[in-house]
Amino acid sequence: MSKNKAPAKSAAAKPELDLSVYMKELGLAARRAAGLMAAAPSDPKNRALLALARRLRSAGSGLAKANAKDVAAAKKAGLAAPMVDRLKLTPEIIETVALGCEQIAAMPDPVGEISGLKRRPSGISVGQMRVPLGVFGMIYESRPNVTIEAASLAIKSGNACILRGGSEAIHSNLALAEIVSAALAEAGLPTTAVQLIKTTDRAAVGLLITAPEAVDVIIPRGGKSLIERISAEAKVPVIKHLDGNCHSYVDAEVDFDLALKVIVNAKTQKVSPCNATESLLVHVESAADFLPIIGHLLADKGVELRGCPRTLALLGPIKGAKIRAASEADWSEEYLALILSIKVVDSLDEAIEHINRYGSHHTDAILSSNHANAMRFLREVDSASVMVNTSTRFADGFEYGLGAEIGISTDKLHARGPVGLEGLTSLKWVVLGQGEVRR
Amino acid sequence: MSKNKAPAKSAAAKPELDLSVYMKELGLAARRAAGLMAAAPSDPKNRALLALARRLRSAGSGLAKANAKDVAAAKKAGLAAPMVDRLKLTPEIIETVALGCEQIAAMPDPVGEISGLKRRPSGISVGQMRVPLGVFGMIYESRPNVTIEAASLAIKSGNACILRGGSEAIHSNLALAEIVSAALAEAGLPTTAVQLIKTTDRAAVGLLITAPEAVDVIIPRGGKSLIERISAEAKVPVIKHLDGNCHSYVDAEVDFDLALKVIVNAKTQKVSPCNATESLLVHVESAADFLPIIGHLLADKGVELRGCPRTLALLGPIKGAKIRAASEADWSEEYLALILSIKVVDSLDEAIEHINRYGSHHTDAILSSNHANAMRFLREVDSASVMVNTSTRFADGFEYGLGAEIGISTDKLHARGPVGLEGLTSLKWVVLGQGEVRR
Repeated sequence: MSKNKAPAKSAAAKPELDLSVYMKELGLAARRAAGLMAAAPSDPKNRALLALARRLRSAGSGLAKANAKDVAAAKKAGLAAPMVDRLKLTPEIIETVALGCEQIAAMPDPVGEISGLKRRPSGISVGQMRVPLGVFGMIYESRPNVTIEAASLAIKSGNACILRGGSEAIHSNLALAEIVSAALAEAGLPTTAVQLIKTTDRAAVGLLITAPEAVDVIIPRGGKSLIERISAEAKVPVIKHLDGNCHSYVDAEVDFDLALKVIVNAKTQKVSPCNATESLLVHVESAADFLPIIGHLLADKGVELRGCPRTLALLGPIKGAKIRAASEADWSEEYLALILSIKVVDSLDEAIEHINRYGSHHTDAILSSNHANAMRFLREVDSASVMVNTSTRFADGFEYGLGAEIGISTDKLHARGPVGLEGLTSLKWVVLGQGEVRR
Repeated sequence: MSKNKAPAKSAAAKPELDLSVYMKELGLAARRAAGLMAAAPSDPKNRALLALARRLRSAGSGLAKANAKDVAAAKKAGLAAPMVDRLKLTPEIIETVALGCEQIAAMPDPVGEISGLKRRPSGISVGQMRVPLGVFGMIYESRPNVTIEAASLAIKSGNACILRGGSEAIHSNLALAEIVSAALAEAGLPTTAVQLIKTTDRAAVGLLITAPEAVDVIIPRGGKSLIERISAEAKVPVIKHLDGNCHSYVDAEVDFDLALKVIVNAKTQKVSPCNATESLLVHVESAADFLPIIGHLLADKGVELRGCPRTLALLGPIKGAKIRAASEADWSEEYLALILSIKVVDSLDEAIEHINRYGSHHTDAILSSNHANAMRFLREVDSASVMVNTSTRFADGFEYGLGAEIGISTDKLHARGPVGLEGLTSLKWVVLGQGEVRR
């Protein structure tokens, strides 16, 4: 990004770097570190996390200068102001990230837990032990604090990781990676447990996602096109997070006040996250009374309403509001903007069918005071998060108590929804015998 | 396979079949069925399984004739006798398969269980519900009883499945699929929950594994080359089962009698399964006493021994035994034959390193009376099944109490080792609120 001569430590100063050799070395080092991390007890892992928090807080001007370099380069390159803002490591952001490390240190160690140990008729006892996945590769954009979130989750879960941040944050990320290394060394853990790819060469991503011998899973965080490209080209499993076309459904029996409050929150509290509601379904028995009120509330917040014919008829004109007919394409749309599609449905069945057909299996909520309907919605809506009487905006690793999230999965295998420490582990079988043999 | 004119019901009689249209219809039907199966309570699922067992036992001459057709064609085509045997649906095999259906009916329903429901500071309660994956595709060879195993696991786990058996078993599989359909119909479940691909056209496999809109996961069961080809070409996640290069390690402190009994079993009880031991590691302190005894026992069973230099020196000549030096390639070999590689190691560390480097992360066992060593082996050996003082041959869904296994995974994501009902499900997040909103 920067047109200035890069400092000696930056890969930009080493055009002679042999990328495939470099990536192979990174992979080998990660594999070796993964073995040591998997065997590491909780104590050094937690000490590394606390050291990381301390070192982040006292990083001072070194980190600030690196970050300033990225911010200056981004401004010079004409990046939009929100993008530049996302790059900034303010003292508040550093404090939040440091607190996150301490919270993860305080959580129970997921590794080593043996569950379900049962005696079998043959005499052997069979159970499952939670173990790290090994090495994960993380590919992300802009926000440099993701570097610390990924590092702290890797350390606690006993994995090694190879991180590939955005080129616009390379100096910040290099500085953060050095702080992570120092924290690992201080706790006696391998510094190669967390490695940042030091070059901004795009070919590094291609090498990373096609190296199953080095990487067990790839976690991309970024735009849909990035994730689709990675999924298409990867030879390593990918924990994908595609779009969030989230629904809120207002049932026939419902507490209107509750539903109004929740839907305004789900749509407008923040429109850019993937868990914001993009589509409102209303049972026909509630529609006549509910739609005009929610229409006014949302219009007041500047939300454009795109309705089915019945919705348009019931909404009527609302002063100053943008209201238009929804097209077929609207039902599948993830707006990430002050826009909401609205459809009147005749039954809970129609709502469930609509969500399973047009939704993105991310997060969907029912607003209902009918227990049987709430339970059916929970069971039959095929989404990573299903909710009753609350805002889809809660679909989040912190809100779920995971301590942090490495990503949100819209896949069905392995992990669905917010992925925290447990999503970075899997279960292996443990068999304890006393000389039993197979007959 | 057969050169006879096929009966009207067989796809072989319909050369005009448009494969891509047929596969698309199969996929759509599977998706629709999956929604109904996911919502189905335990009772109809169990009734379908019991009906299936009853119908298998009373299938009589219809099934026998279809099976005889496959067996005759296989003989005519010159298939090896063991391959022909694997095709046969003897009364004993049918009884075993029917019993399997009844056992699965008697197991707890994995679907719908909500675990870990916890109140969060925001007021919402967050937990996880076990749900079916949706549609799985199963690709397998020869043994027609796999058709029933897959069908019964699909029914119990609330999934739909699309089955692709070997062309050599097509008539048996078609007859079995009709029995499954009748059992589903009897219980009021969609008959398209279990669909067998009715054509032996190889292109059907290519269409199946590249249809993420129709299939959530592919489970191949067969030779390594089949699985590697499917993994390379699939656009759908694959639960892979590659090779089983299983180790048994004899520690320094060990009950010799126990170790001798277990290792003879692990190597010779049956040599063709993937969980048979292929490599023996012996701690140097046990080697001098242990190797000559185990060498004689294994030689008596006709096992060829391929040793490292220290092994060869300690074994000495054994009358009638095939003994030779192990090459580097031997350490990675899955023999599936009366052959065993043997290496003397200096420490537990060396044993663990060797297994993690040369093994296939399938199943590995330690024979030891030292608790700390046993625990280290369990933690640090990175395999789907890790065992203490018992035979690697126990790595099996039935032996683990899974009721049945749909396959054995050598992957690290989602499911490791034997995959039963739980491996055909995943966890979605359930959030229960009382009008909470995100701040």
